[in-house]
Amino acid sequence: MKALIFNGKLTFVTNMPIPEPPKDEALIKILMVGICNTDIEITKGYMNFQGIPGHEFVGIVENVNNADKSWIGKRVVGDINCACGNDNCEYCIKNLGRHCPNRTTLGISERNGCFAEYITLPINNLLEVPQKITDEIATLTEPLAAGFEILEQINITKKHEVLIVGDGKLGLLINHALSTTSAKITHVGKHKEKLDIALKNGSKTVLLNQMPDKLFDVVVEVTGSMSGFEFSLKHTKPRGTLILKSTIAANQKIDLTPVVVNEISVIGSRCGLFKPALNYIEQNPNPLSEFIEAVYPAENALSAFEHAKRRGSMKVLIDFR
Amino acid sequence: MKALIFNGKLTFVTNMPIPEPPKDEALIKILMVGICNTDIEITKGYMNFQGIPGHEFVGIVENVNNADKSWIGKRVVGDINCACGNDNCEYCIKNLGRHCPNRTTLGISERNGCFAEYITLPINNLLEVPQKITDEIATLTEPLAAGFEILEQINITKKHEVLIVGDGKLGLLINHALSTTSAKITHVGKHKEKLDIALKNGSKTVLLNQMPDKLFDVVVEVTGSMSGFEFSLKHTKPRGTLILKSTIAANQKIDLTPVVVNEISVIGSRCGLFKPALNYIEQNPNPLSEFIEAVYPAENALSAFEHAKRRGSMKVLIDFR
Repeated sequence: MKALIFNGKLTFVTNMPIPEPPKDEALIKILMVGICNTDIEITKGYMNFQGIPGHEFVGIVENVNNADKSWIGKRVVGDINCACGNDNCEYCIKNLGRHCPNRTTLGISERNGCFAEYITLPINNLLEVPQKITDEIATLTEPLAAGFEILEQINITKKHEVLIVGDGKLGLLINHALSTTSAKITHVGKHKEKLDIALKNGSKTVLLNQMPDKLFDVVVEVTGSMSGFEFSLKHTKPRGTLILKSTIAANQKIDLTPVVVNEISVIGSRCGLFKPALNYIEQNPNPLSEFIEAVYPAENALSAFEHAKRRGSMKVLIDFR
Repeated sequence: MKALIFNGKLTFVTNMPIPEPPKDEALIKILMVGICNTDIEITKGYMNFQGIPGHEFVGIVENVNNADKSWIGKRVVGDINCACGNDNCEYCIKNLGRHCPNRTTLGISERNGCFAEYITLPINNLLEVPQKITDEIATLTEPLAAGFEILEQINITKKHEVLIVGDGKLGLLINHALSTTSAKITHVGKHKEKLDIALKNGSKTVLLNQMPDKLFDVVVEVTGSMSGFEFSLKHTKPRGTLILKSTIAANQKIDLTPVVVNEISVIGSRCGLFKPALNYIEQNPNPLSEFIEAVYPAENALSAFEHAKRRGSMKVLIDFR
């Protein structure tokens, strides 16, 4: 099968064997995949991952091993964290398989990903995609779920003033997710045309260089830069919450004094549940089409990767149909 | 009056004028004061504070200005944050005057502190000290309140396994505060004799070099060192809580990746309410006497400061009686 492989270098191959689904897993024929910043980080050494990267997909179940055969033929997306599912796993029993210590993660840790014609994934991870959602939009389920994750972690109500910092694609998907609350949302970024997406969602938008000296109850940091973290901390109220959505700024010199003095809660936030994201996509397919910047055929997957690396690019997809 | 003054250098003087209490404030004759690590940090430039440092005190109200005269003659401790108290201050109305943006802080910010024979403090900040509590033990109210602050911020129940990292005096006072919960507490530090205080409180104790590879629901970081922060992060469960109790480790290179990947909540924690601390002291005066290492007469205040700087020292007090 065709696949992108990373082993210190990213290569496009056509002779990978089609994987065999282990017990309780499905063999999925990939339709389309999205390229995430994490994939780009992986090609720089993140997680020391080697193999087939990729974790944003939509596909069709082609076969199952020791599982409900009614899945065969269904179009699906799937949670990328493959948990142990044991009754005595304190994370799995709380529906927190994405923190299961024995998990593998699609295209990120110990499991080949979806930049290929086929993957296998546990049946329990799958959700059927409603017919009205296109393949293109369905690939947004995973990153949008990461946005909805914030609402699994903290309670956001109309009493809250929320600031989203960063107008990249994840920041804007988070805007979609948080727009389902009744909070007052302000979105700050560097690009007027990107911020217009947030504006259409009902947010107030501000260009970075015009940001007033104002504090917020909840600040979501999605820039992945050191200056973005400091900016976010500076705009978080005492006793407020700063959601950290990006790991990229890690391992830099950080002054955490304001966290202690102002008793701020800094909450890391990663993968989310797919169901709320898929529900949202079903109800709002059109606004999300703005996120798709380009679709490349599988044979041009390396070019798609180069495109995705461009600063400010929106979602770049690879078509394996 | 006698006072310790810091203006780039710490000096003991005897000719400071006695302060006049502003409207709604009390003039308090100081009995005893404790030296805190924050005071030592102030003499290194923390907060750019100049004036009389000191914020852990017990004293007697000698006069009041435009306030309830029944306070006169009472022995008191007092909250160090002097808030605006306005009905339209979002912090003051929530009993969070310690985050009021217009606050001054005794001996730390914009207000002379208690290393002196007299201070003034708003009547609203005062609590009467029950008769059975000695002057020595009463000085522990402020740092113990900082320990109880954790219980104002998060809910700790018997379902939680808690790790306290650091066996300095604040770490051990926090142990006293958290021992009022039904959580399973482990206290890790470098000094067996210090950890014995935690052991008497019913905690499990572990020497740092014997720490097992175990994760906790709640970890309280009280070492003020970079390695302590990293150690604490390493021992926090996914979706767990790391309470940051010290600012000293700030402005160093920190890898926050585990915060995001494991969705950890890092919660800064500072000053607390005095009432729970004073109640606890009233009920447990004897165990707390272990915290008092030395008492110096006012004239030897500079020596007291040198003593307090010694690594591993417990509480050093200055006697202004």
